[in-house]
Amino acid sequence: MTRPIASVTNPKVKRLVRLRNRRTRDAERAFIIEGYRELSRAVGAGIDINEIYSCEELFVGENEHSLIDDVTSAGADHVRLDEAPFRKAAYRDRPEGLLAVASQFDTNLKGLAVDDHPLVLIVESIEKPGNLGMMMRTADAAAVDAVVVADQKTDPFNPNVVRASIGSLFTVPLAIASTEETNTWLDANGIRPVVTTPDAPVLHWQADYRGAVAIVVGSEQYGLSESWLSTSNDRVRIPMAGTADSLNAAMAAGIILFEAVRQRSRPPGHG
Amino acid sequence: MTRPIASVTNPKVKRLVRLRNRRTRDAERAFIIEGYRELSRAVGAGIDINEIYSCEELFVGENEHSLIDDVTSAGADHVRLDEAPFRKAAYRDRPEGLLAVASQFDTNLKGLAVDDHPLVLIVESIEKPGNLGMMMRTADAAAVDAVVVADQKTDPFNPNVVRASIGSLFTVPLAIASTEETNTWLDANGIRPVVTTPDAPVLHWQADYRGAVAIVVGSEQYGLSESWLSTSNDRVRIPMAGTADSLNAAMAAGIILFEAVRQRSRPPGHG
Repeated sequence: MTRPIASVTNPKVKRLVRLRNRRTRDAERAFIIEGYRELSRAVGAGIDINEIYSCEELFVGENEHSLIDDVTSAGADHVRLDEAPFRKAAYRDRPEGLLAVASQFDTNLKGLAVDDHPLVLIVESIEKPGNLGMMMRTADAAAVDAVVVADQKTDPFNPNVVRASIGSLFTVPLAIASTEETNTWLDANGIRPVVTTPDAPVLHWQADYRGAVAIVVGSEQYGLSESWLSTSNDRVRIPMAGTADSLNAAMAAGIILFEAVRQRSRPPGHG
Repeated sequence: MTRPIASVTNPKVKRLVRLRNRRTRDAERAFIIEGYRELSRAVGAGIDINEIYSCEELFVGENEHSLIDDVTSAGADHVRLDEAPFRKAAYRDRPEGLLAVASQFDTNLKGLAVDDHPLVLIVESIEKPGNLGMMMRTADAAAVDAVVVADQKTDPFNPNVVRASIGSLFTVPLAIASTEETNTWLDANGIRPVVTTPDAPVLHWQADYRGAVAIVVGSEQYGLSESWLSTSNDRVRIPMAGTADSLNAAMAAGIILFEAVRQRSRPPGHG
């Protein structure tokens, strides 16, 4: 076995740091997966792992070695790092000794197949990677069939998306498209959009989320664009007692998603 | 008017940086409020502001000057900083030119008065300041009467709480107490706890949140302690399709809070 990399200026370490930048990720069509939980979900979801970096001194569990075995037997290179270079390469403040480079997966809307009566989450122009990650995590819990990011502002392969999603980025089908393409896709699949806007006359629990439904939420700062508001007949708002910006965008999505889960758990006619 | 502070090693600047540490905050009984929105909510809520620091070059709005006037006429000292020392003192990556030092307010449970039929959020042992802040923000939107932090792990005066709460830390009544004190307080006020745990037989929307109710959520990692689970008859879980850790603690609190809002908006007998 070769010795672990000891230098913080080793080219491999420098490249891992560069992969925090979108430009490098886009050029390499690659991204970073850090942490045991995230990486094991990526492996379970069939994400293509090219390299795995480890630092035994930082392991916190007992299954790291078997996960490394799984990844390397699927063809990934394994590189060991001393603690100093690992900490340099790691994105987190408290790294746990596992970090992988994976190939970006396809996020084309054309490749997104959904069953009959799907529940879809559409997010327009979301800006904060942490919010997109938390939406993916919540969508996973709500058994959402797919998440579509319309008019992308945030790179889904940003390390903060991976982290905040705790690996749900790999388990919930995700597509990226323009708002126009998204609307065409909804029409083609017979999916009814329910759009959220503070001006809506209807409260979010007064809408019907059964059948083929997409919940559409807007950006943190600007809400939904006019094209969504003018084309949908189902406009809802979450009643807010506090100030207008009282709810985080991911929180708003989660609250409506779980109202949909509640309604969809009941047979039609017993809403 | 005196000239703005130009040095990044000025003792006032160094003290602002030290106030990021809990030890300094506890010793001084002070904390930092950064940002226009947060500071204006603090002023509106009557928080005692001792000093205000400004950097005009960084202002993003038009009302900063009048907010500074409000704060100084209430007795605070105003100190101007050049951009370099302000950026050093600021906690945020993109500072907006306003930063204040305020006195910590009382968080004693004994001082917490609630109306008849309150809706209370109780959070046990929450560890991440960002989660506590998001809970305060969501509690504000849900018109929660009070938030009680039981078995405190996180300092509510941590700058990340202030930031994630967007100032709701100042508008929603907050108390900190032990779990035992919290239970005594609930009994004394006739408030029924509804506790959340993944093992509960009842789904969160099957419980009744009308009347005097406290929603009790546990920590990110360990959930609720045994004392809560054994004393409450109302145990609920959010149905989860994904993995066990699919929901962020603040998200779980928000989903149940808004189910309570939904139920409480209806007259009794029409649930």
